Amino acid sequence: MNPTINQILDHRSIRKFKNEPISKEQIKAVIESAQMASSSSNMQAYTVIGITSPEKKRLLAEYAGNQAYIEEAPLFLVWCADLNRISIASKPYGVDEIVSSTENFIAATVDVALAAQNAAIAAESLGLGIVYIGGIRNKPKEVCELLKLPKLVYPVFGMCIGVPDQKPIKRPRLPLSAVYHEEEYDTAIYEEQINLYDESIRKYTIERSGGKQDTCWSKEMAAKISRPIREHMRSFLNEQGFKLE
Amino acid sequence: MNPTINQILDHRSIRKFKNEPISKEQIKAVIESAQMASSSSNMQAYTVIGITSPEKKRLLAEYAGNQAYIEEAPLFLVWCADLNRISIASKPYGVDEIVSSTENFIAATVDVALAAQNAAIAAESLGLGIVYIGGIRNKPKEVCELLKLPKLVYPVFGMCIGVPDQKPIKRPRLPLSAVYHEEEYDTAIYEEQINLYDESIRKYTIERSGGKQDTCWSKEMAAKISRPIREHMRSFLNEQGFKLE
Repeated sequence: MNPTINQILDHRSIRKFKNEPISKEQIKAVIESAQMASSSSNMQAYTVIGITSPEKKRLLAEYAGNQAYIEEAPLFLVWCADLNRISIASKPYGVDEIVSSTENFIAATVDVALAAQNAAIAAESLGLGIVYIGGIRNKPKEVCELLKLPKLVYPVFGMCIGVPDQKPIKRPRLPLSAVYHEEEYDTAIYEEQINLYDESIRKYTIERSGGKQDTCWSKEMAAKISRPIREHMRSFLNEQGFKLE
Repeated sequence: MNPTINQILDHRSIRKFKNEPISKEQIKAVIESAQMASSSSNMQAYTVIGITSPEKKRLLAEYAGNQAYIEEAPLFLVWCADLNRISIASKPYGVDEIVSSTENFIAATVDVALAAQNAAIAAESLGLGIVYIGGIRNKPKEVCELLKLPKLVYPVFGMCIGVPDQKPIKRPRLPLSAVYHEEEYDTAIYEEQINLYDESIRKYTIERSGGKQDTCWSKEMAAKISRPIREHMRSFLNEQGFKLE
C-alpha cells in the first residue's frame, strides 16, 4: 500500500537486542510521536518513565517474571496512566480532589495505550525493535516504589526498545473477518474462523519451536482465561487512588 | 526524521469530511494494520464494528451527544474490548466460565487501543482523516443494543474515518519533559511545565476560535476532572459481564 502500512504490517515483537544504546535524538523522536496520539479531552493522562539504569532494569526484569530481555534492552519504557498531573494542574482552580472513577480510569488507560503505540511505530520506523511487557503488572506496587510513582498513577505496561538482534517469524493474526464485523456483532462466523486460526497458530508454533511445541490458539486461550492472574490489580489500583466505582 | 514519523507528528483530529466513500481496499489496509498491533498473550481481545448505515450512524451520533460528524463520516468504527471471542474459543476445552477480572479488563482495553492507533496511523497514511469518539460511552447500553454486542464485549470508543474537508491547526502538546521522566517520576517539574503549556493552549484556543475563546489547559482540566461524568460505566460494565474485582 505505502511504506508506513508496509512497516506496520511487518511488525514482530523483538526479545533480543544488540548491545547498542539508543541516541537522545531517537528517544526524542519516539516520545514526540507518542505525544501526538489523540487523547481524551486533551487530558494527556499518561507519563512514560525511561529506564537505562542497569540496576533498575534488573529489578524490573525480576518483577516482570524474570524476563531477561528487559535487562538487555538499552531502554525500557514504563508506560503509566496518570491522573496525578491533571490533579496538580487543577488545584489552583479550587479542585481539592479529582473525580477518580471507572470512566476516568478507562480514559487514562486508553490515553497511555494510544501514545505507546505511536511510540512503537516510530521506533520501528527508525529500525529499532520493541516488545510490550504486561508482566510489570505482576508486581505493580514494587514498580511504583522503585519508580516513585505517586497516587493516581499506575504502571500499565512496559516496553523494551533496542536494535534488534533477531528476526522472528511473524505471528499470524485471526482472520480479518473475525475481528472486523459490518454493521453489527456477528458470532455466527466464529466457529469456522477460530478453526482456521487454530490451524495457522499450530503451524506457526511448530515452525517457531523447531517442532518441539504443538498447540493451537483455542487451547492456549482456554489455559490463559480459566486461571485467575494478577488478582491483586483491583486492590492495588484502589490503594493507588483509582476508584473503580 | 522519516516519512512515518513526520506523518505521526502531523496528526490532527478531523471533524469535517468530504462526501466520498472509503474503498474496500482502504478498509482492508486499515483493519489489517490494526491487527498487527501487539496483543496481550495474543488474546486479540477486541472487535471492530464498521458502520456505514446512515440510520445507525444517526443514532450513534445522537448517543455520543449529537456529534454531527459521526453521521457525515463515510465510515464509523466502533472499537470494542472483547473477551467473548476467547470465551467461545475456550469452551471446547472445558472452560464454562472465563475469569472476568480487573486484569483481563485492562488487557482487553489496552488491546483495543493499540489496534485502533495502528488503524489511525494507517488511515492517515492513506490521506484519510480520523477522530476518536469517547462520547459513545455516554450511552454504552444503547450502543450495545444497536450493534448487538453480547456479554463480555463493551464499546470503548468510536472513530470517524473519511476524506478530510478541513485542515485544523495542530493542538500543542505538553512539553516533552512533562510526560517523559528519566529513571523515576518527577513532580518537581510540573509547575513550570504546566504554566508553559497553559500559555501555549491559550494561544492555540484564541487562534482556533478567532479570538472568541480564551482559556488555558489547567482551567479546562479543572472543569473536566471535578465533575463526575459517565457515572453509569461501572454498573454498565458489570451488566456486560466485566467484573472489576
